[in-house]
Amino acid sequence: MPQLRLALAQVNPVVGDLDGNAALVLQWAHRAHEAGATLIAFPEMVLTGYPVEDLVFRETFAAASKAALRDLAAALAAEGLGDVPTIVGYLDADGPVQPGAGSESDGGPRNAAALLAGGEMVATYYKHHLPNYGVFDEDRYFVPGSSLSVVRVGGVDVATVICEDLWQSGGPLAVAHEAGVGLVIVINGSPYELNKDDARLELAQRRAAEAGATLAYVNMVGGQDELVFDGDSLVVTADGTLLARAPQFAEHLLVLDLDLPAASSGLTGPAGELTVSRVTLSESAAPVPEPARLGEIADRVVDEAEVWSALVTGLGDYVRKNGFSSVVLGLSGGIDSAVCAALAVDALGAQNVYGVSMPSGYSSEHSKSDAADLAERTGLHYRTVAIAPMVDAFLSNLKLTGLAEENLQARVRGVILMGLSNEEGHLVLTTGNKSEYAVGYSTLYGDSVGGFAPIKDVRKTLVWQLARWRNADAAARGETPPIPEASITKPPSAELRPGQVDSDSLPDYEMLDAILTLYVDADRGRADVLAAGYEADTVDRVLRLVDHAEYKRRQSAPGTKISLKAFGRDRRLPITNRWRETH
Amino acid sequence: MPQLRLALAQVNPVVGDLDGNAALVLQWAHRAHEAGATLIAFPEMVLTGYPVEDLVFRETFAAASKAALRDLAAALAAEGLGDVPTIVGYLDADGPVQPGAGSESDGGPRNAAALLAGGEMVATYYKHHLPNYGVFDEDRYFVPGSSLSVVRVGGVDVATVICEDLWQSGGPLAVAHEAGVGLVIVINGSPYELNKDDARLELAQRRAAEAGATLAYVNMVGGQDELVFDGDSLVVTADGTLLARAPQFAEHLLVLDLDLPAASSGLTGPAGELTVSRVTLSESAAPVPEPARLGEIADRVVDEAEVWSALVTGLGDYVRKNGFSSVVLGLSGGIDSAVCAALAVDALGAQNVYGVSMPSGYSSEHSKSDAADLAERTGLHYRTVAIAPMVDAFLSNLKLTGLAEENLQARVRGVILMGLSNEEGHLVLTTGNKSEYAVGYSTLYGDSVGGFAPIKDVRKTLVWQLARWRNADAAARGETPPIPEASITKPPSAELRPGQVDSDSLPDYEMLDAILTLYVDADRGRADVLAAGYEADTVDRVLRLVDHAEYKRRQSAPGTKISLKAFGRDRRLPITNRWRETH
Repeated sequence: MPQLRLALAQVNPVVGDLDGNAALVLQWAHRAHEAGATLIAFPEMVLTGYPVEDLVFRETFAAASKAALRDLAAALAAEGLGDVPTIVGYLDADGPVQPGAGSESDGGPRNAAALLAGGEMVATYYKHHLPNYGVFDEDRYFVPGSSLSVVRVGGVDVATVICEDLWQSGGPLAVAHEAGVGLVIVINGSPYELNKDDARLELAQRRAAEAGATLAYVNMVGGQDELVFDGDSLVVTADGTLLARAPQFAEHLLVLDLDLPAASSGLTGPAGELTVSRVTLSESAAPVPEPARLGEIADRVVDEAEVWSALVTGLGDYVRKNGFSSVVLGLSGGIDSAVCAALAVDALGAQNVYGVSMPSGYSSEHSKSDAADLAERTGLHYRTVAIAPMVDAFLSNLKLTGLAEENLQARVRGVILMGLSNEEGHLVLTTGNKSEYAVGYSTLYGDSVGGFAPIKDVRKTLVWQLARWRNADAAARGETPPIPEASITKPPSAELRPGQVDSDSLPDYEMLDAILTLYVDADRGRADVLAAGYEADTVDRVLRLVDHAEYKRRQSAPGTKISLKAFGRDRRLPITNRWRETH
Repeated sequence: MPQLRLALAQVNPVVGDLDGNAALVLQWAHRAHEAGATLIAFPEMVLTGYPVEDLVFRETFAAASKAALRDLAAALAAEGLGDVPTIVGYLDADGPVQPGAGSESDGGPRNAAALLAGGEMVATYYKHHLPNYGVFDEDRYFVPGSSLSVVRVGGVDVATVICEDLWQSGGPLAVAHEAGVGLVIVINGSPYELNKDDARLELAQRRAAEAGATLAYVNMVGGQDELVFDGDSLVVTADGTLLARAPQFAEHLLVLDLDLPAASSGLTGPAGELTVSRVTLSESAAPVPEPARLGEIADRVVDEAEVWSALVTGLGDYVRKNGFSSVVLGLSGGIDSAVCAALAVDALGAQNVYGVSMPSGYSSEHSKSDAADLAERTGLHYRTVAIAPMVDAFLSNLKLTGLAEENLQARVRGVILMGLSNEEGHLVLTTGNKSEYAVGYSTLYGDSVGGFAPIKDVRKTLVWQLARWRNADAAARGETPPIPEASITKPPSAELRPGQVDSDSLPDYEMLDAILTLYVDADRGRADVLAAGYEADTVDRVLRLVDHAEYKRRQSAPGTKISLKAFGRDRRLPITNRWRETH
């Protein structure tokens, strides 16, 4: 039985950084080579980063992607890595890239994988199934491929497919089965969602059985605007055995030796929806060096740890990849700002996190002391700017009462944070949670100001859960829990008027989150929410709040998606919209 | 030759307002009946409004659309209109509406047209070509139809198709030809773009020739978030003769008598990509009442008038459809705020427009006098709030210098406008133009605050052109030109520091707009911009500014699209993006 030493390079590319991403591929190809790999695979569109969105329509960019691929093939060979076939995702186009212009025959844009060896592109594969739901718009960008390349590597027939090809039944994996391949490599840019890793393993097992072959899944890691990629690269056999699995949210080289069936003459030409083409690179496998690599299976972590890592990665990469090194945020003493600060400290280090307490006449003593306590626990930079002089200046010159006066306080705080950002060069973090975004419980241009919203997709009850987990995890490691206990246990309040608490205007968060999960995440209607046992008045109030807040969400900062349906490109609703579940 | 009196109802529905839209259809069906119509057509998805975006995935909404259609059919009959076949666009779904769940066989969501008569749905057609480019995401929402319904109405074979079906060659129109239909009705939700009306007429003529039939095109009017629909309904014969054409940006009933070929037995069953099905409603035409209706051909207007109407409609409908009746905006004395104010006055009446002059120590005398002059010319509400006390309060409590201090002034103005909005209930208008959005020449949460951006898609040079046209048009009608001449002729300045003018940091606007048209609107790369004759330093500076401002645009208010590529859903670029045309 031929043996291949497969290396899956779970790396973190940057969208648009062709030079940097090519260097990243070279660097990890060297590591794989040093580990004795005889076949290496990188993620989907690793050379361009993913998703590149409308950069697809820039002819210069598409041309640069192809040039970068050719240069990369040459560089791999020049650096002594030409003998190791290396699979790399990139953007391909031979013809017009403008929207609607592309078709397969005229070489329109394609989400592509190349197998590089000996300084050449030995084979290419174009993604067949294009996702066009949720956060994905691939029908907008790509022409689907209709051919499966089977490459004989070390005497094994290897097919490469891309991401969504795995999620759809039929198509390339069924054809891989007909073509009798011994190994299917799936390269991915598959964004994290809570619980997706469980689905992913089951799916890989099912598809490996369909393909009748060992299946290797390599995914990128890192943050890209609203998305965060978790890696979780893995290898399963056709009978469903998990051979190896990489950790989530860390760059990693997953290396293992695979005994694979020797290739026999197989199908060429049309098969199902595709055509099979074949290339022979090598008929016999180079021996893999000692010691054998059996692969490792990284432990799964609890959900809170997984989400925390997702948020740390999403926040840290947004800051770094956009050229910032520090962040500033308002510290109210509440749970949301405390969790955001703790995330920022984990992502960037305390020395790069600037907290500002901005008390008003309505701020309680514990707000100020809890904020100071957080600063002391985490070591972040801390200062206090009282807002009264600025608020008073507005009130002396304008008649603002009630809600207008409440919002004024939040907006003065926003102006202060933006001023510090402009003066000192920090990125502003906005600390709203998903429950607040849902019901519009925020002041536009007030507490909503910021370049990034670390917990935008985290519902309030999960914010508390994460805080408790993070503190317990610190304690278990003998470290100081970062989040003041009082911030976790006290009743949430915006403190914009005397004695205000969130429960004055919102149902308690357990109930609110349950209703929102049905209405927002699952797109259920009023009747289904009522059927779940909630009071009509409460349900109607929450649904109206959600519908009415669309204009605020439209102007909100991006934040890391961790749920099945995050606010942003995942959920596209008109602002002008008279549909109401309640009449 | 049978004769039909066709009525095309160019109406203005509201997204989500099923009851209101059904009432609108009934009202205009009555008018058509009074005009003696024997066939009536309404626009694409008139019953739901268009585009409904992710409302498609709400099962309750899809069910309500179908129920509203049944009720409408019954109401038409009950009100004595059952004899006049009426074509109505709606959202159809028999099965699951969740993303990815739909397929034709399981009744997934469809963009549908029903022919209603005698209280029944006589025939349905499902949109075959789904646009998934530019502002459109229809592959996300709809299952394509694969059947063409031919309905015999008054002895004429009539086929109905929907919008994109007209823009693609082949498909339903080719099949209509094979089926030998005498009249093709195209129902549309086709957003306005400058010069699209010219393309539309030529296209209708070409497709009428392909179908070998008279072609009637009915489009909606009105604003929906970023989109504005211009109507421009028209009828052309197979030989390209324009028989009738409605005005743009106004609700209108276009009525005309058509002599059409008598139906003969034609194709049924598979034809090209579709299947033809046939229904006979009436074998002979009811006589049309005297006098004959020859149709009218509305005059085309100059481009400036067309764009002005688009902007007035987009702004007015955004305000009204979102439940506001008044707007507030800052008046700087400059051209952008003057044009926005004039648009608002045209859209809502001067009594509903509140202008605020917010001078600083850097504001010139002419800024204040030009703003006051504008107020006097238009009759809008006018007040002055000096910003110095608030700016000083911040500067006394925070160290802010340079750009941070400049931005502070803009943000204090933003807080004032938002305060007035909260206190008095006006929607805030933000007055940035497309050139500014492109290069990020604005202060985030400062002059960018607002619920709607009337000239977001109008480049600066076109802003001036519109102002000159609007003034000249007023003068020609013996009215007071609304825009102070000084606002048009003086050099543009943000007035955030002494003596500042835009040309300190930007190329002159003629050149800037020319570069932006290539880089943004046409997605050309650096080499193409250089080839157009611009200096490398200037080009590189502009391209860098555009790339860097993506984060600001992401948080910007919606504004009316008038160009081929507007900022918003038309142009989807990552914020985290290291691709630079210049290295």
